[in-house]
Amino acid sequence: MTFNAAHLLGIEHLHPTEITTLLDLADHYAEQNRKGIQSKDVLAGMTQVNMFFENSTRTQSSFELAGKRLGADVMNMSMATSSVKKGETLIDTALTLNAMHPDILVVRHGSAGAVSLLSQKVNCAVLNAGDGRHEHPTQALLDALTIRRAKGRLHRLSIAICGDIAHSRVARSNIMLLGKMENRVRLIAPPTLMPSEVSELGVEVYDDMREGLKDVDVVMMLRLQKERMDGGFIPSEREYFHRYGLDAEKLSYAKDDAIVMHPGPMNRGVEIDGSIADDINRSVIQTQVEMGVAVRMAAMDLLARNLRERRAAGQVVTV
Amino acid sequence: MTFNAAHLLGIEHLHPTEITTLLDLADHYAEQNRKGIQSKDVLAGMTQVNMFFENSTRTQSSFELAGKRLGADVMNMSMATSSVKKGETLIDTALTLNAMHPDILVVRHGSAGAVSLLSQKVNCAVLNAGDGRHEHPTQALLDALTIRRAKGRLHRLSIAICGDIAHSRVARSNIMLLGKMENRVRLIAPPTLMPSEVSELGVEVYDDMREGLKDVDVVMMLRLQKERMDGGFIPSEREYFHRYGLDAEKLSYAKDDAIVMHPGPMNRGVEIDGSIADDINRSVIQTQVEMGVAVRMAAMDLLARNLRERRAAGQVVTV
Amino acid sequence: MTFNAAHLLGIEHLHPTEITTLLDLADHYAEQNRKGIQSKDVLAGMTQVNMFFENSTRTQSSFELAGKRLGADVMNMSMATSSVKKGETLIDTALTLNAMHPDILVVRHGSAGAVSLLSQKVNCAVLNAGDGRHEHPTQALLDALTIRRAKGRLHRLSIAICGDIAHSRVARSNIMLLGKMENRVRLIAPPTLMPSEVSELGVEVYDDMREGLKDVDVVMMLRLQKERMDGGFIPSEREYFHRYGLDAEKLSYAKDDAIVMHPGPMNRGVEIDGSIADDINRSVIQTQVEMGVAVRMAAMDLLARNLRERRAAGQVVTV
Repeated sequence: MTFNAAHLLGIEHLHPTEITTLLDLADHYAEQNRKGIQSKDVLAGMTQVNMFFENSTRTQSSFELAGKRLGADVMNMSMATSSVKKGETLIDTALTLNAMHPDILVVRHGSAGAVSLLSQKVNCAVLNAGDGRHEHPTQALLDALTIRRAKGRLHRLSIAICGDIAHSRVARSNIMLLGKMENRVRLIAPPTLMPSEVSELGVEVYDDMREGLKDVDVVMMLRLQKERMDGGFIPSEREYFHRYGLDAEKLSYAKDDAIVMHPGPMNRGVEIDGSIADDINRSVIQTQVEMGVAVRMAAMDLLARNLRERRAAGQVVTV
Repeated sequence: MTFNAAHLLGIEHLHPTEITTLLDLADHYAEQNRKGIQSKDVLAGMTQVNMFFENSTRTQSSFELAGKRLGADVMNMSMATSSVKKGETLIDTALTLNAMHPDILVVRHGSAGAVSLLSQKVNCAVLNAGDGRHEHPTQALLDALTIRRAKGRLHRLSIAICGDIAHSRVARSNIMLLGKMENRVRLIAPPTLMPSEVSELGVEVYDDMREGLKDVDVVMMLRLQKERMDGGFIPSEREYFHRYGLDAEKLSYAKDDAIVMHPGPMNRGVEIDGSIADDINRSVIQTQVEMGVAVRMAAMDLLARNLRERRAAGQVVTV
Repeated sequence: MTFNAAHLLGIEHLHPTEITTLLDLADHYAEQNRKGIQSKDVLAGMTQVNMFFENSTRTQSSFELAGKRLGADVMNMSMATSSVKKGETLIDTALTLNAMHPDILVVRHGSAGAVSLLSQKVNCAVLNAGDGRHEHPTQALLDALTIRRAKGRLHRLSIAICGDIAHSRVARSNIMLLGKMENRVRLIAPPTLMPSEVSELGVEVYDDMREGLKDVDVVMMLRLQKERMDGGFIPSEREYFHRYGLDAEKLSYAKDDAIVMHPGPMNRGVEIDGSIADDINRSVIQTQVEMGVAVRMAAMDLLARNLRERRAAGQVVTV
């Protein structure tokens, strides 16, 4: 087994063998979850703290369930109503939390790099649950596991990521992960929603859905943030759906067995047609959620093992 | 033991023997709670999710304590700040949650029928913690247990339900439950707060408190929602208390040993006089809260047994 | 061991030997926490409810972690969104909660005396997590433990409390505790932030920082509430920092080995210079947070022992 990281801050620094190790373990937990078997000893005696500076009921719940199934004591800190509002700096918040001796810290923050900064100030394992437009590694890992289970492999696939790529940490982490695993990634978006650094990403770029979807194995839709519309990035929901919304006609350009993904929550009729989302032969959207819990269990398990080893070796000073 | 339901969505579909089975088990849990004895094995390894689309600290806490005393992993999802706000449909929310493999799902929702709809989309046991003006079955069951313990029986009693009946799911569930158990139910309310379909309910109708309370065994007061006053349903708090507020003088028309109930939170001086609420010889208001935890333990215990059986029989596909 | 209290409502009624008993046990838990050893049996089978009528992520988290490390079932009740808003009285809220059979109740409330009132209505152990401008006993105890560990003793020390003393329950509890343990307490504040009853407190009073800090062993800074500035209590942040903010120059008047404390969250550059807060040779601010968890574990452990004894002796009626 190869997984040496102290934290899971992003896909950027993961090696392909680490990704495979994590997905293999997540596969195991996915099966346990289906059977209703818990593994309370894995994180027994450990304290997991979920620090969400941005609300996300969905992601926080997934991490909370993952921790509880592994036997951790889970504490949610709702940072929107906390000391942060009282003017405390992020570093002081980190130091304060650290003094309470958590073992696992799950953080979502609105600023790119904030989770990494925080990880340098604490003596526990930190998982990035989304930082600004930077990374959302567990989302990319759960997407990868979903693809691997549906396609039987996670390499040499042709994968289209469609929609608001410029503002999406999900897209960013996925592009890195899928590239590392030697897949062919296409980005499909209107020019206003395409990242400016797109030429450096090693991807193919399209602004036409039919062209971009041609013969792909996987269609990964992104959520369209409502605030983009007010910002003038797109003309209207209706126009957006007409050009970039996934419907049966556009999907017909992809391979016959192409799967459809969405990180949720979906705007039906905006970026995706409801009938596609509900098509059990194509959509793996619920499997993504299911794999989310499994991937988070695997990540916390591996990080906890490393933490215990580093503590035993005296490499982590407890205070 | 007779209790075959997969979900507890309302009183409407419960058979009297199911009600009795549930109350008998709740009686057992009430005694355990008084002795401080927990039963952590009953829901051990099970995940209970509380999804409250409407805030209710009181009801949510009761379900949370009930689950924890039975050993469940309990997760609260505060839906007021969740994906729902991001435009996700209720069915998508249900499917998403279902993919996380919960075992027990407790739902409160502002729309009648929403909990039932949700129960059709998930593979776990669903408990209705209040849906719109439709049903609030655990409230009716805790009221029934409170009455049975105070009166020694739950049939052939004369029970008056007083106040804002038109807008009350508590009243609706209670009318059904008390009717099924062959009690005589009277409704007392001003015409503006009486439901329009009252003639079909098999109850006696009064708009005068003294007449309606005459010789009853149980006086069940309802909370007056403050917003009713703005809506022009009642003239003023003072006038309402004068005509429909329960005080010693009006209560004197009931039987000498009549008990007084209120689902809480109370508006003292509006629908009930403080001295009546505090009269330990008459008021069973705190017992109602106590029985609330016991009834919820019993309901989750029974539903979990059925869920395990259906799973073992392959009748519930896990994914 | 000497600790006979049923509740921890304030420092006022604690005897010095009770304080020492509590701090000794907290010292033990501090070491356990550093080693990552939990004591799940101490509060096993007990229900801890955190009722925070004022939000405080920091204090609530500390109590939550303390309870979970001792094996309690912990339930957070967010009272800001609860029945209180629906017009329920504090006593009705207490009686309702009591009917759910909690064992330990942690309460923060905006009104002085509210926690004490509530403790009279329930059959469980109550801990005051801050009531108005009255008391915040666990903060004073964690400060005391921090001082004792840094200085090797908790008596005959010279301790300066600086800043917004008039509005601070932290200052109030600390003045009492440090006085009981026979220390010399100085208060340093502008006249507008000095309590009117200061002459009865048995302390020395200064409005000049340099004078007040002269030769002290401990410098205890208080948080400046932003709302004080709007209230006209201080001229401006900048002026306040100039006169009362702790910086290296002012600190040089204290003893060479004087420690610096702050209850957090800090306003860097307002009441304390960032470089002082970060000086690991002087600042014990993170140790305070760490001792906070330990002190709360000790307090809940001692109160739970007393509760069990009183219950066994039939002195607490369960219902």
